[in-house]
Amino acid sequence: MCQIKDMSNQEPRAGCGDCGPDAAGVECCAPLACEPLPESGARELALLFKAVADPARLRLLSLIACHPGGESCVCDLTGAFEMTAPSVSYHLRILREAGLVSAERRGTWVYYRVEPAVMARMSAVLVPQPAALAAG
Amino acid sequence: MCQIKDMSNQEPRAGCGDCGPDAAGVECCAPLACEPLPESGARELALLFKAVADPARLRLLSLIACHPGGESCVCDLTGAFEMTAPSVSYHLRILREAGLVSAERRGTWVYYRVEPAVMARMSAVLVPQPAALAAG
Repeated sequence: MCQIKDMSNQEPRAGCGDCGPDAAGVECCAPLACEPLPESGARELALLFKAVADPARLRLLSLIACHPGGESCVCDLTGAFEMTAPSVSYHLRILREAGLVSAERRGTWVYYRVEPAVMARMSAVLVPQPAALAAG
Repeated sequence: MCQIKDMSNQEPRAGCGDCGPDAAGVECCAPLACEPLPESGARELALLFKAVADPARLRLLSLIACHPGGESCVCDLTGAFEMTAPSVSYHLRILREAGLVSAERRGTWVYYRVEPAVMARMSAVLVPQPAALAAG
């Protein structure tokens, strides 16, 4: 039985008695706040966090997410920071291989887009789910 | 001007015209979705993500967060996974030095507690803020 308290107010959250969904079908706890991560999930998440554990990749991700429509042409990314084109390519490849961004070639240029579901999964594991926060 | 669209529904979020707080004082965008991270912030965040970019540390964090009250005695952490006591100590030190957990000695044992503000900061940078998600 999960007795974790809501970290924001140190009071037990409603519906947290069995770690399952509440009456509205909302899971009351994020994985990290509810039960120890299984080994396989922890390995997978660690790889995702490793991909963002770099200032250049964090800045590239933020630049892509910031562009209109959440998509950015590689031509806008190259030269945005003090990075050479090969460095930008290297970091974009790591982000793409980790599944944090997708890439699509259209004509001359490759366009990058963040993968919100993957980033939301990483985000959710660090804190109680937004639904629980909003209800708290 | 930030024209980023809400990643959950691909519609522009209300109040997202200038990336500032809306009428209710709520920032409409998480840093990553709103404007490129500054270099210093990216460096700092990268160190935090590096600290969690390890399966053992993710599992230890989840075990601490899962304990009643969000606090865990080191005696409960040692032996919980297939890790030697020195390994557990090593990973806990990295988490503590990164600021992700705090440690307090009480009598014989050291008690660890996750630092929700730090984890919330990491979480928020990956997705639009919970307030924006809840409003969407």
